[in-house]
Amino acid sequence: MDKLSVIKVGGKVVEELQSLESLLHDFSSIKGYKILVHGGGRSLSRLADRLGIETRMTNGRRITDAATLELVAMVYGGLVNKRIVAQLQGLGVNAIGLSGADLNIIRSVKRPVGEIDYGFVGDVEEVNASALASLVMQDIVPVLAPLTHDRGSLLLNTNADTIAASVAKAMAGLYEVELIYCFEKKGALADENNDDSLIPELNRSMFVDYVNKGVIRGGMIPKLENAFDAITWGVRSVRITQASDLLSMSGTFIR
Amino acid sequence: MDKLSVIKVGGKVVEELQSLESLLHDFSSIKGYKILVHGGGRSLSRLADRLGIETRMTNGRRITDAATLELVAMVYGGLVNKRIVAQLQGLGVNAIGLSGADLNIIRSVKRPVGEIDYGFVGDVEEVNASALASLVMQDIVPVLAPLTHDRGSLLLNTNADTIAASVAKAMAGLYEVELIYCFEKKGALADENNDDSLIPELNRSMFVDYVNKGVIRGGMIPKLENAFDAITWGVRSVRITQASDLLSMSGTFIR
Repeated sequence: MDKLSVIKVGGKVVEELQSLESLLHDFSSIKGYKILVHGGGRSLSRLADRLGIETRMTNGRRITDAATLELVAMVYGGLVNKRIVAQLQGLGVNAIGLSGADLNIIRSVKRPVGEIDYGFVGDVEEVNASALASLVMQDIVPVLAPLTHDRGSLLLNTNADTIAASVAKAMAGLYEVELIYCFEKKGALADENNDDSLIPELNRSMFVDYVNKGVIRGGMIPKLENAFDAITWGVRSVRITQASDLLSMSGTFIR
Repeated sequence: MDKLSVIKVGGKVVEELQSLESLLHDFSSIKGYKILVHGGGRSLSRLADRLGIETRMTNGRRITDAATLELVAMVYGGLVNKRIVAQLQGLGVNAIGLSGADLNIIRSVKRPVGEIDYGFVGDVEEVNASALASLVMQDIVPVLAPLTHDRGSLLLNTNADTIAASVAKAMAGLYEVELIYCFEKKGALADENNDDSLIPELNRSMFVDYVNKGVIRGGMIPKLENAFDAITWGVRSVRITQASDLLSMSGTFIR
């Protein structure tokens, strides 16, 4: 099987033009088939502030009302996505920016209202692996925004970590998939105040231990759950690392 | 040669959800290969107002400073483009939203500073006809936002009428191209206050006459110049009409 790298970037890396440029430069040098998935980080909250639209978060997840959904389409689907595509084209990478609606790449279902109404948030139902494979085999590099659709005209906000894991899983039947989550820290840390406390390998029972001890917490928990899910579904390798280590073999490997 | 329809929509049609829905419904029923080009209309100016970013126009063209370019990427590249794509998918059309940077579909050059500095505005240099042809032959419908790139990482604001004409011209070597501009009025009017004064056919000498008499003026002049340019370069049919007449044969035909 051919190799396919699925790289997810988010947070500060996407917000700061210089760190983004550096990340995209490294990304462009990765050999073989690849897909980039991006978040949007705080640029959305900043625009919401400027427009007087309230940002509401629950358990680290954004509540997406109609006004916020418009911001998601603008900032993630437009500004960040097109900026990345233009920069990759400048680096000689034939990038194409896609939301889940484009080519029906990712169909999701609006999250049912339970204790919390997340609003226009979509849970991934189906990734169009054949359409993605058709693109990568033409040496086209898909750049996926965290925006999906229900195939009934509705756009939905979808977590970028989840999109990366869903895409990696869907492609695992066709390629030897490597999934890399780039974020601010060196990987999963045994002590969040000590950058040298990197956990080089993490399996599920260690993860449960760390969560129970309160060492791994907050947004790291769903990120790692996505990572374990990917391994379970046949993704060959999952690594969590800081963006500047994209090309090295450092970070936390999920087993 | 196969037939290809290039449809440009803009203005109020794009801004009002109901008129957009109705237009997309008609568009979805057009047989054969097709490409949609959209503007963004006043939604950009409205967002600029809310953010306190000044809108500056010269000769009906927007001056695009760095802050305005971000709005263009957000509103045209994100909000409007993704909304159209999701609606088309809901209508069973396999749409893909593209800026000029995606797949390097439209490369432009930043307009040189003359008497006026238009800022981040791009003049079309090259349309990637083979990439567009490869998409339409897979029954994929490209939805083009009025945003191009210089292939050196820079995004540029580009007039949607010009994009439609450039795409139509570039595809004229491969397809029998029909170009339709949809806008608010029934077509070119001999008396702008009388909707029944439609000019059913317009050739270049009539156009010059009408401009000299002040009958055709403002934003209609560059629109018609684009239309004549398309005819000169082998586009089979060019029509200017109101959106609700997309499927009829009414409007002004350019000869």
